[in-house]
Formats: sequence, C-alpha cells, structure tokens
Amino acid sequence: MDAIPTMRRNMESLVRRTQDEICLAIERLDGTPFREDRWERPEGGGGVTRVLQEGAVFEKGGVNVSVVHGTLSEEAARSMGGGSGLGAEAREFFAAGLSVVLHPVNPMAPTAHCNYRYFERSGPGGLAAWWFGGGSDLTPAYLFEEDARHFHGVLKATCDRHDPAFYPRFKRWCDGYFFLPHRGEARGVGGIFFDDLCDRAPEHLFAFAADCAGSFLPSYLPLVERRRAEPYAEAHKRWQALRRGRYVEFNLLYDRGTLFGLKTGGRLESILMSLPLEARWEYAREPEPGSEEARLLEVCRKPRDWA
Amino acid sequence: MDAIPTMRRNMESLVRRTQDEICLAIERLDGTPFREDRWERPEGGGGVTRVLQEGAVFEKGGVNVSVVHGTLSEEAARSMGGGSGLGAEAREFFAAGLSVVLHPVNPMAPTAHCNYRYFERSGPGGLAAWWFGGGSDLTPAYLFEEDARHFHGVLKATCDRHDPAFYPRFKRWCDGYFFLPHRGEARGVGGIFFDDLCDRAPEHLFAFAADCAGSFLPSYLPLVERRRAEPYAEAHKRWQALRRGRYVEFNLLYDRGTLFGLKTGGRLESILMSLPLEARWEYAREPEPGSEEARLLEVCRKPRDWA
Repeated sequence: MDAIPTMRRNMESLVRRTQDEICLAIERLDGTPFREDRWERPEGGGGVTRVLQEGAVFEKGGVNVSVVHGTLSEEAARSMGGGSGLGAEAREFFAAGLSVVLHPVNPMAPTAHCNYRYFERSGPGGLAAWWFGGGSDLTPAYLFEEDARHFHGVLKATCDRHDPAFYPRFKRWCDGYFFLPHRGEARGVGGIFFDDLCDRAPEHLFAFAADCAGSFLPSYLPLVERRRAEPYAEAHKRWQALRRGRYVEFNLLYDRGTLFGLKTGGRLESILMSLPLEARWEYAREPEPGSEEARLLEVCRKPRDWA
Repeated sequence: MDAIPTMRRNMESLVRRTQDEICLAIERLDGTPFREDRWERPEGGGGVTRVLQEGAVFEKGGVNVSVVHGTLSEEAARSMGGGSGLGAEAREFFAAGLSVVLHPVNPMAPTAHCNYRYFERSGPGGLAAWWFGGGSDLTPAYLFEEDARHFHGVLKATCDRHDPAFYPRFKRWCDGYFFLPHRGEARGVGGIFFDDLCDRAPEHLFAFAADCAGSFLPSYLPLVERRRAEPYAEAHKRWQALRRGRYVEFNLLYDRGTLFGLKTGGRLESILMSLPLEARWEYAREPEPGSEEARLLEVCRKPRDWA
C-alpha cells in the first residue's frame, strides 16, 4: 500500500478552507480580528493557529490547522493504533487536522468544539494504516432545549446524508468520550465523535468529514446569534466559570488529543488554546434543587436524545 | 513483621493536632471560620475536610486530614511500591495524612502547600512495608526574595535538626517534583519534598515528619501577615489568576496524589479542594522583559538556592 497523496492534498485543502470560513464568520459576528500565528514543526510540517481573545461576543476562541509529518516515538506509536492493531512498527506518520473551540462571553450562549483529522501511518513496507477521526460537541452553562435540538439536528442531518447508522453510533460515542468519570458528568450535551474510522473507501469518509466540517457553522452560529444579547447577572457568570472549570478538568485529565500533544512536544500554545479565559472551583458547590443550574447538571448526568 | 500500632496512633494524633493548630491560626488571621465536613470511607476509615472560601485574607484554603485503611486494587498496589519493590502483593494498607493548600486574596502573598503522610502495606505475612512522605512548597505570583529565603530558611533549620543531608536532598527532590515539563517551569520557588522514606528507624522519621508539620505555620504565616495589605491593581490579580492556571495544570496533569485519589475513588471534593477559586488562561501570554512578572518566571525556569 502506498501513501494516498490525493487524500493528503484533499484533507489539507479542506482544513485550510474550513479554517478561513469559520474565522471569517466569527470575525463578522464579533467585530474582533483573530490573531494569527504560523508555526513550523522542526520534525516536519507546521500549522496556522488563530486565536480571538476578549472579543465582544467571544471571551476566547481558537481555530487551528495543523498539517504535520515525521516519526512517532515508540510510546506514541503504541498508544495510537488507528484501529489497525499496529504497535511500535510503521512509525512514519502524516496528520492533517482542524480544531475549533469557541467560548462565548454570554453565559447563556454555549461553548462549542469541533475537530476533524486524517491520519496515515507507514513503515518500510509503505502505507500501513489510514483513518479519519473527529466530531463536534456543545457545552452550555445553561440549558436551552431548542439549542441542543438544533445542534444535534444539524449533525444528524449531516450524518444521515452518508449513512443512517452514523448519527446514533457517533452520538453514543460522543456521550462516552466527553465524560468526566470522577464527577459522573458529561462535559455538556454532546454531539458526535468518532475515531479510527477506516471501514469504507477513503473518499467516502473524506466526503463525510468534509460535510461535517462544513456543518459546524450552521449547527452553532445561530445559537450564539440567538443568545449573545440575553440578559444575565454576575451569578450566571460565576456558574459559567464553574462549568468552564469542568472543561479544564476534562481537557487536562482525559482529552486524548491534549495529553498526546503535551507528551509528544506539540506546539504548547496551540494545544492549550482550548482552555477558557476564566475558570472557577468552589468547594462542594451543588446548585439549588429545581434551579436552572440543577437542570443543566441533570442533563450532564443523564445524557438525552436530542434528534 | 507486624503492623506498628504505636506509629499509626502517633501519626493520627499528629495530623489531627496539626490540623487544629493550622485552622486556628488561619481563622484568627482571616476572621472567617472554616467549614468542616467529616466523611467516612465505605471501605474503611475517613477524614475531616476543612475549607475556607472567600475570606478576607484567603480566597480559598483547605486543611484536610484522612486516616484510611483497606485493600488496594492491583493497579494501585503496583503503582505504589513505597520504595520497597512491592508489586501487586501485600495489598492491605493504612494511611494517615495531613494536606494543606492556602490561596491568599492578595497577589503579593504566596500560595502554600504542605502534605505529610505515613503509609503501611501488609499481606498475609504481616507488615510488608511502611514509609513516610511529604513536603511543603511555596508558589508566589510575585517574587519577594526575602519571603523565599524565610520559607526555605525555616525548612532548612527543621531538616538540619534531624540530618544535615536532608535539606539539600529534599530541596532538589521538590524542584524536580513540582515541575511542569510542558512549560519548562517549576510551579513556584519550591521547598522540600520526599517520598518512600524508610531508611532509618520509624520513630526517627516520625519525629522528623512531626517537626516539619509543626514548621508549616512559622514558615508561611509571617509571609501572609507581611503581604496581606500590600496595594495591588487589577493587572496583578490577572497575573495571579494566570499563575493559578499553572497550579491547576500541575495538579491535574502531574500531581501523584490528585491522580491517585481520582483513580481510586477518593472523596472528590477533598481531593479537588487544592484547586484555586479562580484561574485564567490567555493565549501566548509572555510578560514584558524586565517586569516583575518576568522576574518570577525566570526563577521558575531556573530554580535557585534560597537557604
């Protein structure tokens, strides 16, 4: 098996184009330009990190592209099989990905995350494995059911265009992945998540990933437009910061991408751009029964079907 | 070898007495009472967690005692040898410990942490290993050299009363332990740290641990008294929150006690009471060269001798 140069090219062009589209739409909504950092990876490849901080609508947001290649360490190779049963062999890799995290100012507007990536591993015998991974999930501080329904609805419609089995499978995977076992809580209201996907022709999976990436803005932007001017009080902002503390806990304790990046010496600022501007930890803070805060927790503790 | 019942009793009484002393002194300084939660561990033992939040002097502080016993999981037993080369055998354990974290309001006043614990492991053949662990370290947001010198001076004097080799050895160990490899930064200006200590008679090591625990207040309280009323601006508070973000990173990514506690289902709120009330992450924030903020970073990047 040889590398799939078309797929590398297609994926690189997809993530760059999607980065531009998302940044343009966010800048238009916020009125604040992204700061852009272009970086090179000494071992091969590089990326473009764009971050917006303390905007009018977004407290912090990052839209990253990386297209990298090189040799995995033995440990990294072992921990990343791509569903192929590969071990420490076939350590040459190529990866192209897009990663987006947006934390709005208004506590009524949800945080959103999406990430789409294509991976290849090869060794002396040529290409040994390729796969797609990714997903998109929503993390509100306050629950608006119509927002969760809209977000999941767009994702389901996107999945259904490719395979009606995709949405239920990737929705469950998402609920399982973005989960904090020490709290018994999901990070938010979920979305879709998949990894090591290589069970049909690469061009079909590429078309699916491209469709998902393109659905990020329509799934999320209407929610921010709807909630950006909702009135709120200091207490709502505090609850938002507490929920952002959970976001930090998930990313530093469990998120594979974050931990893999930190261990393998990825670009630190691009990895940690996902962390919120502000987070908060209060001792033994339990919301009042029946409150809006308790309603959110209920949904985090018992994931629901939204589409 | 049988369990050392005297040592269990002595350690339990030490940690409870020290908890009372520290809480009394902190309450006197702050004017705010600690909230106390007594908890039981279904598998054996329990603890007393005391937390003070949004006080006049301390933004958040916790002083915990736990005296627990039971059976380690195979995985936990393997990861915790007590320097004895024990593996999955000898899984009965006893542990008594004191754990203190204090985050002041004033950004000129440093955060302090100390932890002292005694551990036993036994199996069908009786006691298989016992050891002491602990230490104390200082995390300023702004560097006052006389504060670092005072803190280390008290620790060194304490160590020297027991063995002149202790301070240099445990100071180095602390610099190595409270280190964030992904940032190339120490968490603060260090202190002392030791683990798996069992290389002399248990009563000698107990006397050392007791002396260390007793030195926490004299090492730290004068610094807070000195800095609690220093004038500061919003920008100093922001820098403090950024540094507290590093504290969160260390505790969630690297701290053995935190990760061990979360994995083995310890009491969540007692484990995470170490996290600050507020933390902050700004993208690619580098302090102005020559600023006070840069001066602190320099010391975190190149640990110094303070005593």
